[in-house]
Amino acid sequence: MGEAVQGAGAAAPTWSAEVEVEAQFYDIDPMNVVWHGNYARFFEHGQHGRCAVLDRIGYGYQAMQASGYAWPVIDMHIRYLDAIVLAQRVVVAATIVEWEHRLTIDYRIRDARTGKRLTKGRTQQVAVSLESKLMCLQSPPVLFEKLGVPYPW
Amino acid sequence: MGEAVQGAGAAAPTWSAEVEVEAQFYDIDPMNVVWHGNYARFFEHGQHGRCAVLDRIGYGYQAMQASGYAWPVIDMHIRYLDAIVLAQRVVVAATIVEWEHRLTIDYRIRDARTGKRLTKGRTQQVAVSLESKLMCLQSPPVLFEKLGVPYPW
Amino acid sequence: MGEAVQGAGAAAPTWSAEVEVEAQFYDIDPMNVVWHGNYARFFEHGQHGRCAVLDRIGYGYQAMQASGYAWPVIDMHIRYLDAIVLAQRVVVAATIVEWEHRLTIDYRIRDARTGKRLTKGRTQQVAVSLESKLMCLQSPPVLFEKLGVPYPW
Amino acid sequence: MGEAVQGAGAAAPTWSAEVEVEAQFYDIDPMNVVWHGNYARFFEHGQHGRCAVLDRIGYGYQAMQASGYAWPVIDMHIRYLDAIVLAQRVVVAATIVEWEHRLTIDYRIRDARTGKRLTKGRTQQVAVSLESKLMCLQSPPVLFEKLGVPYPW
Repeated sequence: MGEAVQGAGAAAPTWSAEVEVEAQFYDIDPMNVVWHGNYARFFEHGQHGRCAVLDRIGYGYQAMQASGYAWPVIDMHIRYLDAIVLAQRVVVAATIVEWEHRLTIDYRIRDARTGKRLTKGRTQQVAVSLESKLMCLQSPPVLFEKLGVPYPW
Repeated sequence: MGEAVQGAGAAAPTWSAEVEVEAQFYDIDPMNVVWHGNYARFFEHGQHGRCAVLDRIGYGYQAMQASGYAWPVIDMHIRYLDAIVLAQRVVVAATIVEWEHRLTIDYRIRDARTGKRLTKGRTQQVAVSLESKLMCLQSPPVLFEKLGVPYPW
Repeated sequence: MGEAVQGAGAAAPTWSAEVEVEAQFYDIDPMNVVWHGNYARFFEHGQHGRCAVLDRIGYGYQAMQASGYAWPVIDMHIRYLDAIVLAQRVVVAATIVEWEHRLTIDYRIRDARTGKRLTKGRTQQVAVSLESKLMCLQSPPVLFEKLGVPYPW
Repeated sequence: MGEAVQGAGAAAPTWSAEVEVEAQFYDIDPMNVVWHGNYARFFEHGQHGRCAVLDRIGYGYQAMQASGYAWPVIDMHIRYLDAIVLAQRVVVAATIVEWEHRLTIDYRIRDARTGKRLTKGRTQQVAVSLESKLMCLQSPPVLFEKLGVPYPW
């Protein structure tokens, strides 16, 4: 997975969100680490994950519905570099890295204290018209508008 | 929690469903037992729980929608008599025990091999009209019809 | 469920924890409300639920382990007064209400904006000696010590 | 993701497991499809997923522990070709496709009635010595033994 690109020529991350969270008892498996299947919740969480970054650009779940599109996740990839243990505080960062044909978001989880990288992830979403139920091969104008970049088509 | 009553004067359980299941790795917490919050899935599961017994009477989720009512769970009580461990095979039994004013289902979980009782549970659901969004103080006729008992009002 | 009692003669809640949280997309079911089985996570969460109040008295999971006891949940009761919808902000409050023979914690969830009561819950936990694996009929001295109340036996 | 290879020169799948399952109410999100984060449970489930195929070769969780190794998942990739809806019956197939340096398992989910392909997935696990806590760069002899293939090192 490549590094996050932050908008055309932007010096600082503009479409990112990150916050500190703590691994909960219910996240932990018998090996005393966060069960690998629970990371999808970390990535999505509205305070720090995908929903946070989409809310930031004004295109959260309800705005998506209002715009006439659903954005199902069509691909998820998670690379577990190191385990997360009970009560470990971690920082989850989500960054939009691609938007023309699909909406790609990169995730990085690092230890809140040491900064050690723990997890890399990526999700891809595509626009589906709520009316026609058809998948869009290019992202619709509304996404470009929300991102503040010109619509290229 | 009282014992399940099986229809007026019925000798054998008529509105029950039960089947054997196995505790999964993702169900288990760091104490090496099924996490207490995961039992709601055991109770609901369409092969052995609430959904199974409702399917049996022809009143599963889709039939509920078609009848114009939702049936949200308004109360859940779980008594954990003994823990369930990884790969333990258990039998989950769900039985309809009350239907006039609300739909009450009792759950019993026992060890599949020894028959030892492990868990007791109960959920209560009430009918909510999908049209008026109002909660019904009495169960609507469709439930009695599905159960094959006369509508008493 | 009775109201929470806050320590012997205490005027203000002393063994409580509460914080605002937001219902996530992954919490929501096809009826567009938080699935009833997901409330156990709300109750437990280390920022606002059971773990928070236990951390506050210095008796979180790791301190429990160190003290030689596990405290499994033996009973959970949830009363769903009103549904919680996507992105609704709610306050989860957890309060220790009983400690002599078991550890009982009451939960209240209310709407963060209007204060409307949404959910009531209660869990009961008992001490189990990690060494003997036996359940304790009375809470061990360590719990009283953490609560700062005299050991009555 | 390449197609599953079934042992050196084997004509029929030898290290596979598959079974029919049904999407549950608690799996479904507000868009009325299985929430993308829930597929990890489908992949792992002991009746049809990773645990099933590992049990089949006699190397399930407990046998792993007994052999002195843990096998954490270090990578998971899921490609969602088509959504799964409530009560849809699907077949989950898990196949071991790589074992020399890591244990790679491929997953395919298809509609039980039409055979339409719905999901592709892959997990990678590596051996970690329970004693030294070190990750093994080559799979330990016990895995080859369980698979019935010669140890190449």
